[in-house]
Amino acid sequence: MSLIKYYEKTRKFTEELCAPLSTEDHLSQPIVDVSPPKWHLGHTTWFFETFILKKFIKNYQEFDPHFNFIFNSYYETVGQRVLRHQRGFLTRPSVERVYEYRKHVDELIVQYFNGNPAAEARQLLELGINHEQQHQELFLTDFKYILGVQPFHPVYSKDFKESIIEDHPFQWIEIKDGTYEVGHKGKGFCFDNELNRHKVYLHSYSISNKFVTNSEYLEFMNAKGYEDFRYWHSEGWAWVKENGIKAPLYWEEIDGEWHRLSLSGLEKINPDEPVTHISYYEAYAYAEWRGLRLPTEEEWEVAAEKFNWGQRWEWTNSAYLAYPGFSKAEGAVGEYNGKFMVNQMVLRGASVATPEGHSRLTYRNFFHPYLRWQFTGIRLAQ
Amino acid sequence: MSLIKYYEKTRKFTEELCAPLSTEDHLSQPIVDVSPPKWHLGHTTWFFETFILKKFIKNYQEFDPHFNFIFNSYYETVGQRVLRHQRGFLTRPSVERVYEYRKHVDELIVQYFNGNPAAEARQLLELGINHEQQHQELFLTDFKYILGVQPFHPVYSKDFKESIIEDHPFQWIEIKDGTYEVGHKGKGFCFDNELNRHKVYLHSYSISNKFVTNSEYLEFMNAKGYEDFRYWHSEGWAWVKENGIKAPLYWEEIDGEWHRLSLSGLEKINPDEPVTHISYYEAYAYAEWRGLRLPTEEEWEVAAEKFNWGQRWEWTNSAYLAYPGFSKAEGAVGEYNGKFMVNQMVLRGASVATPEGHSRLTYRNFFHPYLRWQFTGIRLAQ
Amino acid sequence: MSLIKYYEKTRKFTEELCAPLSTEDHLSQPIVDVSPPKWHLGHTTWFFETFILKKFIKNYQEFDPHFNFIFNSYYETVGQRVLRHQRGFLTRPSVERVYEYRKHVDELIVQYFNGNPAAEARQLLELGINHEQQHQELFLTDFKYILGVQPFHPVYSKDFKESIIEDHPFQWIEIKDGTYEVGHKGKGFCFDNELNRHKVYLHSYSISNKFVTNSEYLEFMNAKGYEDFRYWHSEGWAWVKENGIKAPLYWEEIDGEWHRLSLSGLEKINPDEPVTHISYYEAYAYAEWRGLRLPTEEEWEVAAEKFNWGQRWEWTNSAYLAYPGFSKAEGAVGEYNGKFMVNQMVLRGASVATPEGHSRLTYRNFFHPYLRWQFTGIRLAQ
Amino acid sequence: MSLIKYYEKTRKFTEELCAPLSTEDHLSQPIVDVSPPKWHLGHTTWFFETFILKKFIKNYQEFDPHFNFIFNSYYETVGQRVLRHQRGFLTRPSVERVYEYRKHVDELIVQYFNGNPAAEARQLLELGINHEQQHQELFLTDFKYILGVQPFHPVYSKDFKESIIEDHPFQWIEIKDGTYEVGHKGKGFCFDNELNRHKVYLHSYSISNKFVTNSEYLEFMNAKGYEDFRYWHSEGWAWVKENGIKAPLYWEEIDGEWHRLSLSGLEKINPDEPVTHISYYEAYAYAEWRGLRLPTEEEWEVAAEKFNWGQRWEWTNSAYLAYPGFSKAEGAVGEYNGKFMVNQMVLRGASVATPEGHSRLTYRNFFHPYLRWQFTGIRLAQ
Repeated sequence: MSLIKYYEKTRKFTEELCAPLSTEDHLSQPIVDVSPPKWHLGHTTWFFETFILKKFIKNYQEFDPHFNFIFNSYYETVGQRVLRHQRGFLTRPSVERVYEYRKHVDELIVQYFNGNPAAEARQLLELGINHEQQHQELFLTDFKYILGVQPFHPVYSKDFKESIIEDHPFQWIEIKDGTYEVGHKGKGFCFDNELNRHKVYLHSYSISNKFVTNSEYLEFMNAKGYEDFRYWHSEGWAWVKENGIKAPLYWEEIDGEWHRLSLSGLEKINPDEPVTHISYYEAYAYAEWRGLRLPTEEEWEVAAEKFNWGQRWEWTNSAYLAYPGFSKAEGAVGEYNGKFMVNQMVLRGASVATPEGHSRLTYRNFFHPYLRWQFTGIRLAQ
Repeated sequence: MSLIKYYEKTRKFTEELCAPLSTEDHLSQPIVDVSPPKWHLGHTTWFFETFILKKFIKNYQEFDPHFNFIFNSYYETVGQRVLRHQRGFLTRPSVERVYEYRKHVDELIVQYFNGNPAAEARQLLELGINHEQQHQELFLTDFKYILGVQPFHPVYSKDFKESIIEDHPFQWIEIKDGTYEVGHKGKGFCFDNELNRHKVYLHSYSISNKFVTNSEYLEFMNAKGYEDFRYWHSEGWAWVKENGIKAPLYWEEIDGEWHRLSLSGLEKINPDEPVTHISYYEAYAYAEWRGLRLPTEEEWEVAAEKFNWGQRWEWTNSAYLAYPGFSKAEGAVGEYNGKFMVNQMVLRGASVATPEGHSRLTYRNFFHPYLRWQFTGIRLAQ
Repeated sequence: MSLIKYYEKTRKFTEELCAPLSTEDHLSQPIVDVSPPKWHLGHTTWFFETFILKKFIKNYQEFDPHFNFIFNSYYETVGQRVLRHQRGFLTRPSVERVYEYRKHVDELIVQYFNGNPAAEARQLLELGINHEQQHQELFLTDFKYILGVQPFHPVYSKDFKESIIEDHPFQWIEIKDGTYEVGHKGKGFCFDNELNRHKVYLHSYSISNKFVTNSEYLEFMNAKGYEDFRYWHSEGWAWVKENGIKAPLYWEEIDGEWHRLSLSGLEKINPDEPVTHISYYEAYAYAEWRGLRLPTEEEWEVAAEKFNWGQRWEWTNSAYLAYPGFSKAEGAVGEYNGKFMVNQMVLRGASVATPEGHSRLTYRNFFHPYLRWQFTGIRLAQ
Repeated sequence: MSLIKYYEKTRKFTEELCAPLSTEDHLSQPIVDVSPPKWHLGHTTWFFETFILKKFIKNYQEFDPHFNFIFNSYYETVGQRVLRHQRGFLTRPSVERVYEYRKHVDELIVQYFNGNPAAEARQLLELGINHEQQHQELFLTDFKYILGVQPFHPVYSKDFKESIIEDHPFQWIEIKDGTYEVGHKGKGFCFDNELNRHKVYLHSYSISNKFVTNSEYLEFMNAKGYEDFRYWHSEGWAWVKENGIKAPLYWEEIDGEWHRLSLSGLEKINPDEPVTHISYYEAYAYAEWRGLRLPTEEEWEVAAEKFNWGQRWEWTNSAYLAYPGFSKAEGAVGEYNGKFMVNQMVLRGASVATPEGHSRLTYRNFFHPYLRWQFTGIRLAQ
């Protein structure tokens, strides 16, 4: 598929994801980490307008001069912006107007790339497509959270399947010690944080060929794992007590049986599904309780061809830091990754909410250790 | 006008007030004190459904069993409710559905009152009408606040007039000392907090026949009144410093000139208009600076027939407390006023946002001393 | 007793109160409302140095130029000061040095007043003595709080008697309606907030001749008064829930029996003693539950000659506001009372911690409605 | 020196460090990270009592049954404890009593180890000595902070030298790529977090043979480095803005010249001294501004024999995580390090406050990225 066709497909997919929403559904921001759907629709469009149309189209007139203020996320280089926790207060522009904005930008982008686009513009388009795919995933997890605060369990789509059961037998995959290479290889697209490809020395280890399941996690819960400080980081334990954490996010005990909210509604826990919506603290505590541990991101990457991955982001025991030789791009695009490299943990893999083709073996996702609203899971190592 | 006609007129007026709003405009809650317009539309309706339809119509089926949870405000008697600061997170029910709810309740109310209504039902209807009028005013001030957080000064209605200039000459109205009566008299509707009518002894005093104007208030600002602790309550001073208060709410200095946001847009300050959107702390500090004081609510009430009032709520120097002989109604309706009688100050009068005929000489409004989003003003006494 | 003798007696009494303390005991500040004993010792001395020695003694050299910064409380007029919540961080000056400061100031004050003191100096001395008496009471209640946070119930003095049992029979004292006078009368010392003496109209009422006892309050607790919102102010109810309030301050249930911390140690609750260490919210809720109410401060003052008072501060249902004709003194002394006249409730009477001769019928004490560390009690009216 | 002699020397040194303090100086806790000196004195003693005397001496009677509650730090295994932020509220036990506690424990420890101690007891003694050395350093940095909040710059000791000037010429030390070993080697004491010794692959790098100096850091400040988001982590930037950070901790600009508080008093900045009291955020931003970076902890360790270290803890770009093969000890001692391995950054080296012989090449210190009260510095790499 040509890049511009891929662009069109990606843009259309975003709108398909939003199709089940009412106008009202586009506006809610129940916590600071969750952005209103309207904002995702506008912000991804702003990215193309700001980094391509304004730069490569002569005398380009902004669609609306207010939108740079409203739909900038964190790019300090590109000017002032609405504070992140205030996105849900904005009733203007209307949802309809944001769709007009999308249409306007799409037409100009397609027109430009069907002409004779600059090489740098092509790179930025590819970055923008990948950026929009990240927001497609965020949209799904954010909207799940929004539905979760509605009092009466509304449904996003009956057909949305949150999980796949792994029915192959459990096995430890063994990796010998030695020097390996990790990081992005080849000419395909990658984010700057996947570079440079570099050598690492790994000590011999084993890694599970399966995710931890709900039934396994329930053993931890039933063994009072949430009440025993010995398995927890000191600040994980403080987090458990301060927030009264007793189960994964979206779990509810109804008449003695565990249920969970999903994008297809409230359901009984399926014991054979991989556990999800857990924080790094919980993933770590579960591993400690089992007498095992989480893999590092390098261990994960080296072994990942030998197991199935992709239906859950997997917490690793690696902090999110720069690879050797990492360098930031010039200007606003350089703010994409580097400035988040502190106090976050790396997740590897992909999830049911990740658009097809977006992730890869060397992909580095990252979140704060206490966050649970992404589809996060556990794979053990030893 | 018959009571049921008055009901219909009141209900219709609420919807007229909301007519300029987009669907999106109905959902925002930028601070906890401000409720989303959708919530006002539903809550006022819930009042009639809960206290009249459920009580007086046999086998009445709730329009929607979730609405009691969603649209209850603070009536602990009537069950659990959405926490106040979470009203803006709710995308469901839709605005359209809330209008259906209104229609449903209106039809049944009208039908019932065109039959042979119980005397108690009539009293509750009157209370409900007055309650809806209070929310009409809150809607306007809340929506002004919502517009105020939109980045680019949108307008509610070009025709909304926030102010009337008082052009009569200034005069002190003098009242002699003696025993007076205050509190509601006669058979008309009043809230429980206006009762009992009772005697008070007043020492002789003078009260202004005019509001303090913007130009007078600017003298205080220019005299650095916001920087001199001597005029302020100790906690008023802490409030000024902590919040960096330098002017009334909605004032903005643009190129050296003061402007203010109004429901009809951004405007230059008119020096002759009464100052508004000030806290009790500011009203008190202004009076101190002038070497004068605010009137008590009893002083206000005794003198009010001698001056024009009604375009601004007026901060008094009276704390909101029970009158002698005050008693609460039985059940949920008893939660209407009494439980707020601590740490709030009384305001007298009415404002440009108060529906016609809603207020009266004995009406007691009340807010916390730091609040400014109502149309509040200053009348001096000595 | 001459004024200067009274000064000496008062100063000595402060030091007697502190005699049971270790050096370490002088430094703790567990909450912002509680000041370290060292600070009380220094601040009361600073008052005399600042308002008398600096003003009336020619070329007076400050004892230590840092002390104005350290021991100023809230007098913004007299310069910068240590923030209130940081008083407990100060290890310097030493306790010993503060006693030297006291000695130095005492010698100069006595010397000056044994000469030919100015009339204004005499007034300030009287104010300073009354000020120091207020801090004697605060010292006792603050130190009780400090002992309360030590893990193992240390004792201030085995001989300190916190309570007197009222064994006379219960009776309603009835007062007829009419115009009465309240406020300070005569030439004796009073604070500015007791002026002017003025007329009030009171409706007929009854007031109890006894305090509410622990056993009566236990009835409220056993009737689940702390779990029933109907008796509480809206913000009182929020306070109960947010802080998990279930009993008066310093009460502990040990093996099913209620005990309380006192300055003489941990003791079983005596059912016949007046209940104490309750907030205004609790006093109000108790009265509501009984179907009665708290008296206003004017009702209290008019009736107070007919009952025993003085062993407990009594919450009234009056907000702390200015009397008619109230005016502040010039300069720093004017900051004494007026600037606290918002969001506080009046207490009348005195307590076991109040120095003999300090309080009187017209005395107006005041605290925020949620505070409980003073010896506060309940007298009912109807 | 025998282990028990080393114990005695260490214990004595703690008391020598505290010798300049008044009784009052032992009690202050201005922020939660800073413990009162009295607490350090008691807690280090509690460690020996709890882990040695109680375990190895038959029928040992606790010195005081309350002390386990008061002087436990974070060992959840050993029972309830005073909350960390409340350590400064405790006026009991007295400082004198804590010294008696020290004496009591010292006598029994010496007696026991002069007999026939168990091998495990010897290991715990060694751990306890190293633990007390860590608290010696914390005492100095905590007490510096305590002095820093006293209004008038008191001095700990005129002779305490906070800094040594490096006068050798600047040079990049070059290290070739390859597989290296890091982690503790040999039989000497180490903490569990230094194990296992393991291989790492390092890419070729250069590391400075000198610390960044005050004059170099002033260049960053003068170039408005604190005002330019481009050099900062996203959360570092938020920290700068929220806290108004403009210079290292303890720096004060007086009449246009930078000074700093030190344990020997207020001094002008010496441009040639290494910069200190900076957060990880600042260290990172400084390196970014220079176009360089911080070394990883493995890079530091491999190169450290080639440069002078030890007068400043050096921020590395490594998150504090477990080494391959890390395992926690059984029981309470296992809480020593592992549970802090999240959201902290590693520091290498030692400081002027570190007791002689305490640190080593493989030593891993760690703090949260925003903390500045330790003697922290910067060494650059590329």
